[in-house]
Amino acid sequence: MTCAQILPEVRNRPEQQEEEMIKAGIIGATGYAGAELVRLLTGHKEVEIKWYGSRSYVDQKYASVYQNLFQIVDDACMDDNMEELAGQVDVIFTATPQGFCASMLNDTVLAKAKIVDLSADFRIKQVPVYEKWYGIEHKSPQYIEEAVYGLCEINREDVKRARLVANPGCYTTCSILTAYPLIKEGMIDPDSLIIDAKSGTSGAGRGARVPNLYCEVNENIKAYGVAGHRHTPEIEEQLGYAAGREILVNFTPHLVPMNRGILVTEYAKLLPVKRADGQESLPTYEEIRAVYDRYYAKEKFVRVLEKGVCPETKWVEGSNYVDINFVIDERTGRIIMMGALDNLVKGAAGQAVQNMNLMFGLPESEGLDLVPMFP
Amino acid sequence: MTCAQILPEVRNRPEQQEEEMIKAGIIGATGYAGAELVRLLTGHKEVEIKWYGSRSYVDQKYASVYQNLFQIVDDACMDDNMEELAGQVDVIFTATPQGFCASMLNDTVLAKAKIVDLSADFRIKQVPVYEKWYGIEHKSPQYIEEAVYGLCEINREDVKRARLVANPGCYTTCSILTAYPLIKEGMIDPDSLIIDAKSGTSGAGRGARVPNLYCEVNENIKAYGVAGHRHTPEIEEQLGYAAGREILVNFTPHLVPMNRGILVTEYAKLLPVKRADGQESLPTYEEIRAVYDRYYAKEKFVRVLEKGVCPETKWVEGSNYVDINFVIDERTGRIIMMGALDNLVKGAAGQAVQNMNLMFGLPESEGLDLVPMFP
Amino acid sequence: MTCAQILPEVRNRPEQQEEEMIKAGIIGATGYAGAELVRLLTGHKEVEIKWYGSRSYVDQKYASVYQNLFQIVDDACMDDNMEELAGQVDVIFTATPQGFCASMLNDTVLAKAKIVDLSADFRIKQVPVYEKWYGIEHKSPQYIEEAVYGLCEINREDVKRARLVANPGCYTTCSILTAYPLIKEGMIDPDSLIIDAKSGTSGAGRGARVPNLYCEVNENIKAYGVAGHRHTPEIEEQLGYAAGREILVNFTPHLVPMNRGILVTEYAKLLPVKRADGQESLPTYEEIRAVYDRYYAKEKFVRVLEKGVCPETKWVEGSNYVDINFVIDERTGRIIMMGALDNLVKGAAGQAVQNMNLMFGLPESEGLDLVPMFP
Amino acid sequence: MTCAQILPEVRNRPEQQEEEMIKAGIIGATGYAGAELVRLLTGHKEVEIKWYGSRSYVDQKYASVYQNLFQIVDDACMDDNMEELAGQVDVIFTATPQGFCASMLNDTVLAKAKIVDLSADFRIKQVPVYEKWYGIEHKSPQYIEEAVYGLCEINREDVKRARLVANPGCYTTCSILTAYPLIKEGMIDPDSLIIDAKSGTSGAGRGARVPNLYCEVNENIKAYGVAGHRHTPEIEEQLGYAAGREILVNFTPHLVPMNRGILVTEYAKLLPVKRADGQESLPTYEEIRAVYDRYYAKEKFVRVLEKGVCPETKWVEGSNYVDINFVIDERTGRIIMMGALDNLVKGAAGQAVQNMNLMFGLPESEGLDLVPMFP
Repeated sequence: MTCAQILPEVRNRPEQQEEEMIKAGIIGATGYAGAELVRLLTGHKEVEIKWYGSRSYVDQKYASVYQNLFQIVDDACMDDNMEELAGQVDVIFTATPQGFCASMLNDTVLAKAKIVDLSADFRIKQVPVYEKWYGIEHKSPQYIEEAVYGLCEINREDVKRARLVANPGCYTTCSILTAYPLIKEGMIDPDSLIIDAKSGTSGAGRGARVPNLYCEVNENIKAYGVAGHRHTPEIEEQLGYAAGREILVNFTPHLVPMNRGILVTEYAKLLPVKRADGQESLPTYEEIRAVYDRYYAKEKFVRVLEKGVCPETKWVEGSNYVDINFVIDERTGRIIMMGALDNLVKGAAGQAVQNMNLMFGLPESEGLDLVPMFP
Repeated sequence: MTCAQILPEVRNRPEQQEEEMIKAGIIGATGYAGAELVRLLTGHKEVEIKWYGSRSYVDQKYASVYQNLFQIVDDACMDDNMEELAGQVDVIFTATPQGFCASMLNDTVLAKAKIVDLSADFRIKQVPVYEKWYGIEHKSPQYIEEAVYGLCEINREDVKRARLVANPGCYTTCSILTAYPLIKEGMIDPDSLIIDAKSGTSGAGRGARVPNLYCEVNENIKAYGVAGHRHTPEIEEQLGYAAGREILVNFTPHLVPMNRGILVTEYAKLLPVKRADGQESLPTYEEIRAVYDRYYAKEKFVRVLEKGVCPETKWVEGSNYVDINFVIDERTGRIIMMGALDNLVKGAAGQAVQNMNLMFGLPESEGLDLVPMFP
Repeated sequence: MTCAQILPEVRNRPEQQEEEMIKAGIIGATGYAGAELVRLLTGHKEVEIKWYGSRSYVDQKYASVYQNLFQIVDDACMDDNMEELAGQVDVIFTATPQGFCASMLNDTVLAKAKIVDLSADFRIKQVPVYEKWYGIEHKSPQYIEEAVYGLCEINREDVKRARLVANPGCYTTCSILTAYPLIKEGMIDPDSLIIDAKSGTSGAGRGARVPNLYCEVNENIKAYGVAGHRHTPEIEEQLGYAAGREILVNFTPHLVPMNRGILVTEYAKLLPVKRADGQESLPTYEEIRAVYDRYYAKEKFVRVLEKGVCPETKWVEGSNYVDINFVIDERTGRIIMMGALDNLVKGAAGQAVQNMNLMFGLPESEGLDLVPMFP
Repeated sequence: MTCAQILPEVRNRPEQQEEEMIKAGIIGATGYAGAELVRLLTGHKEVEIKWYGSRSYVDQKYASVYQNLFQIVDDACMDDNMEELAGQVDVIFTATPQGFCASMLNDTVLAKAKIVDLSADFRIKQVPVYEKWYGIEHKSPQYIEEAVYGLCEINREDVKRARLVANPGCYTTCSILTAYPLIKEGMIDPDSLIIDAKSGTSGAGRGARVPNLYCEVNENIKAYGVAGHRHTPEIEEQLGYAAGREILVNFTPHLVPMNRGILVTEYAKLLPVKRADGQESLPTYEEIRAVYDRYYAKEKFVRVLEKGVCPETKWVEGSNYVDINFVIDERTGRIIMMGALDNLVKGAAGQAVQNMNLMFGLPESEGLDLVPMFP
């Protein structure tokens, strides 16, 4: 069943309009991020999914792998032949392991279809940095320069013009958006930035590995990738652009016993502001708030919460929102910034759809009017 | 913010169309079922919520009680004055404790607005049965006769004509739909029916009570209301209509450590079928399947699963679907029927919206094209 | 570190007493049941674990596989050479897949060490039944006859004399103990017995399989093995002994999002009791209670709860208790019996230790004085 | 039932030995910490609980409030009359809200019984600091000076001599022990210390409040008490002693969807070490490890994990252990220290029992030989 059968307004369109719909293909459709793309695009009235690429499940009904989509998606899984796919669709989403997209991309593909890559392959501008942190050789570095880092709220205009969008990581989207305005405006010292991140377990993927078993994750919390997680250079690069220089941060992810959600708690030293009387003092709540509002008040998907309200991941579950807030600690001269998003939506598939909307000149929130589910 | 600001197609309508939108009021908007109504109606392009009634939070911003709706709903909570509300809206949803709707309903209200009651007040036709099982006096029994039991797939035509719809219970919707076709067609012995039900904890409501605390529910499962749960007479009445006579069932609910979802496992003796040669034998898989298909193959929201696939509550999470399947045990001559739904959607708010759509002549699935979320 | 270093009273014993301690070996020590055996035996002052057999982790430190035992167990894992092990220990626990123990057992082994097998290999007296339900050939049927079904409360005396104990299954222990007294005393009709069981996920084992991943289990409940679960013949055999004839039951397991615990909800028709005046009537609460008390009032590990209190799996977590209670439904003439235990303790390792205590003439509760953990 | 009936070695003692047992009373026995005290003391062979004080449940059977203790504890709850209690027991544990113990303590009580207070009333030496952070007047400041801060591994000798022990907080125990050796030895800059803490929900207590309901906590994580949590001055005081001067830290707690466990992730700048050649360089892994070993290698309850192994709260669940480890980030010159404990055991009741053992000259680990439960 196509999404036409789902949405009445699509169902009732004359047939020729269906041919005007954007055709999408997903490689890696059977990972959790891929499945979330299917959920979102199935409800997107301008898009039709033509290809559910999954090497592991070729020829099996997609809905037998994701039974929530039974009677919603009728297709069988196809393979991951990117060149063949590019000839049949307008946009390809690659929700694949690191290295796949880079190894498959070539001029033919890029000439025929726009690419939204959910892996890290094109996020980092310096090839040596990518190769060092990801431990693999980059197979198509010639596309890195044109690739646009798909953090919509920051790079909106570049995304609109892009053929190839590097969809940001889940942790990184949350971490960057939470601190970006204050770093850009020089309110905090970027070298003091510490990001303590907590993620639900869908971020670990659907691979059958003992550490991801229910009994290993449940009733448990732990840090991992301490001082060495691959999202670190991505955060440092993006916030470095904001700071106007190279920075180093500490980023520590933790695995939380829940399905979805990322919460970041970020610590930084506030930089003193020179006052009219020549004195220096730390920024006030209102001044910090004004900076956040300047950047985000008009952003539909970024909600800066009311004073004193700490973000909770459940408040954005299933939606494309990012909730942000902060507390100033006058005793220590630090600011604690907090951000929450759904790692599969704004942290992956939702942002990918948001980027696709920009690339195709659609309203940016098309298909993303998702009200967070509670409880 | 009205739903107009959420949906582009609504945003772009000329103003006069907004006055053609259905105005809805919710009393009990701050319970979990009420909040789910808000989530669904906010995404319903033909409806505008005008009144968020909540006695406990009068004058407080609704979004301060349900922060997931921050910047989506701007209204403050109103009180529960049903008469005043009836003059301002086309439909009133009462997501209230037992007895409230019955005590507030009167001819004036019913003349001005349609009512969809999510409580049990008008579900049971026999007042003594209601009063015995619910332990309270029925305050407006004069409306019981016209009230339509809002199980859409069964009572669709009556719902279309109703002024007052008694929205079924969550456990009951699941239990009834799962067994209904086989009882109606005389395939199973209704007196042998045993329903073992398992529910997520949002069904217990948002009241601050020790048994509903996180540490009391988590890592725990238990039965409750054994041989005495108030949903029993509702199931017996509806399945009794199907059987053509009074029946008695055992219904045992259990509390499961998860937010949403109901799974029922129902056991019944298969009744032998007279064959062409005069012999009797139990129905086959194909014969049972044919009965389910006759009733549900055309029902968008009821999915009869493929052979051997047992329903899982997560496959319908956040959606209005009911998944059903069955297994025949030839050894014991019983059939085990299983049904799964989301207790807040098809078990409450989703079915309420489905009923509203029917009452107002809208497409039945309007605002209910929800793809189940996984994970 | 041996358990001597853990327990002061062991630490302070003169060395020769250590040689009087029972030496135990565990094959399959790195499964969840095996790890639970380690936890219990480590705290057992009469036992010393000499061999942590785990084919998958040979030569690796046991505590690197189960970090909770860091600095408590220093040993490295050994292989699963049962004959070599039998020469070094007094008792061998096999917490292994079906078929392993049967294939490894021989006269030499049985002459040297007592065996407590946690698999199903010796639970079922009829080889064809075992082979049909387990789908494998039984490799040492010659030991089936002497093997004692290790349900302590029922077979205590036989266990004491046994060389080979077949430790019962987790679901089966709970199901059998819950119904046994009433079946034995003819209070219920065994052919009407329906067992609806719910289990925590540790029962699925530590194998890396997609269905056992956190995101697949969490926020989800489902039935499985419907009308065909391998525990069915075991329950039918044991309760058949109680009934004095062959019986057939329906047993339906469900997977619950929690680590530990099994709850069974069992339904049966009450059999009428002939009264003094020749009339027949159903048993009363007191009469049923008296039967349970006759069987269990003196049993330390079986707690029959007070009237109206439904068992909760959390109340027995981490302990060797089984909680039982019942409700009579006069409307339908059925009784609903409920039982709860910890699937890894009384459902596996705890009962195995209880059996070992009996086999070696120790106090039956030695090492099992575990107070349930809450929350 | 007394613990005599639980433990065979106690059961078999002659009666006069029972009179030599330490008599304990618990006020606040029906909170989660109080219930954990009951679990631990029930298994402690030198202690007998004589008084289960609970104002909310006076005269009700304790086991009706905590059903896990059914047939283990037979007593009914008493009130919280500390003076009367002091005449009957040797030690009183107060697991009560802030202010209770301070308001009830007097010379008479202290003359008759030793006190282990699990509240914050006597943890902080500066009355103004206590009153500012806790918002209540201190009712018996005259005892603050003699009160010993019951962090066993640090204050062992003082605890042995104390009449009044201020049992540390859960978060604080974990935070302090994790950083203490490095602060004491001047390896890290205490002014750079940031503590990001994550706790299971039993830490919130058993009060019926909406934020602690299952559906509010489950599938959710959030920070709270940001820059203002009452544990901050306690951490600053204790680590200030270690540093030899006043320090200020940022401490941010988070609520995690699990029953038990606290994980702290602590960040600090490493201080350079002067080398033999006059050069300065940051400490190496081995040097930091040597410091931790110096402090903790002999501590039974503090386990410093092997290199590269991050602590997980589940590995210490139900036990009195604290697991610690660290990672040096050479890029940023920071060290990330991690600590994990069970908030109800080493974070509350376990440490209270450990302190009691010290106060009464018992082996420090008596009754605390608990093997962590997994899963």
